[in-house]
Amino acid sequence: MATLDFWFDFASTYSYPTATRIGALAAAAGVEVRFRPFLLGPIFKAQGWDTSPFNVYPAKGRHMWRDLERTCEALKLAFRRPEPFPQPSLLAARVALALEGEARVRFSRGVFRAEFGEGRSIGDRETLSAILKDCGVEADAAFARAESPANKEALKAQNARAAELGLPGAPSLVTAEGEVFWGNDRLEQGLDWAIGKLR
Amino acid sequence: MATLDFWFDFASTYSYPTATRIGALAAAAGVEVRFRPFLLGPIFKAQGWDTSPFNVYPAKGRHMWRDLERTCEALKLAFRRPEPFPQPSLLAARVALALEGEARVRFSRGVFRAEFGEGRSIGDRETLSAILKDCGVEADAAFARAESPANKEALKAQNARAAELGLPGAPSLVTAEGEVFWGNDRLEQGLDWAIGKLR
Repeated sequence: MATLDFWFDFASTYSYPTATRIGALAAAAGVEVRFRPFLLGPIFKAQGWDTSPFNVYPAKGRHMWRDLERTCEALKLAFRRPEPFPQPSLLAARVALALEGEARVRFSRGVFRAEFGEGRSIGDRETLSAILKDCGVEADAAFARAESPANKEALKAQNARAAELGLPGAPSLVTAEGEVFWGNDRLEQGLDWAIGKLR
Repeated sequence: MATLDFWFDFASTYSYPTATRIGALAAAAGVEVRFRPFLLGPIFKAQGWDTSPFNVYPAKGRHMWRDLERTCEALKLAFRRPEPFPQPSLLAARVALALEGEARVRFSRGVFRAEFGEGRSIGDRETLSAILKDCGVEADAAFARAESPANKEALKAQNARAAELGLPGAPSLVTAEGEVFWGNDRLEQGLDWAIGKLR
């Protein structure tokens, strides 16, 4: 079965529609998707940014928020801008990485929906606990695994791999041969590539 | 008839597929498109960049070139990367602005095809002369109009208008109500908006 790695940061705006859309599209295409949480922070820092480029460059940021609103409307997806932006995504990334399989997928979608669909803060444990509960996962045990030294190291390894792949941002889709597709706009193309339609 | 302003810089990579696609799509949608050449340079400078962001940020640049190659392949459009990048686009922008109607459209498409389809330099007069000739325009007269004080001022006014609209880059599509769509990926959406499908 063809595979596709879906790299995302929970603070990434366009990762929200991708996380929501990718399940059904991948199932229809017969592609196995691996949810790979990572942190954009180190990549941004390497480029000299101490916050999201959407804050660093206001014209880009203004367009992005309006464009995201239009994108969500077209998909009939709830949209509400969280404050502040970007949201702290470290804890959510650690939790997602500590989960496996369908639990990771459901938790990740839940975090994106809370953050960009309801404008909730994803930095605090209460929000994440409620999402974990909705996924049938015991929150305290999940936090303990998330914050274990091994899992913290595993997230660092993910970030190192993302840097090695040269990911320009999130969402990024990476095929088995290392072909990189950046952005929610490239989801369909990434899936087509994965199943050999474009090669 | 609904109108849509197509803002582009001849040095802009993704303006190439948009310039190629927009004619047929706009005709099918019943939208009148106005080709509006401008210069990204002043906008980049205001953001602290002295070259294209695709050069400033290598990870973005690497992805862009590969993505553009894939995009052209999917559209069966010739693709060849020009050296150096970005190409000097001032003279071509002045010439385009000095032309009107269909001559401006044909010249603009010709410049993009020469630059990104054949990898030719668009900074020199010979290349532009040949393109003008293909459009049935007398080159020397066109250059004289292009470099008249009035036309130079007109291009500055275009740039000022682009800054006023807050365009984040090129290609940008702007509807009569001032709705901005950035990127080749937003061409269909911009046309749908122009004819009231998305409002």
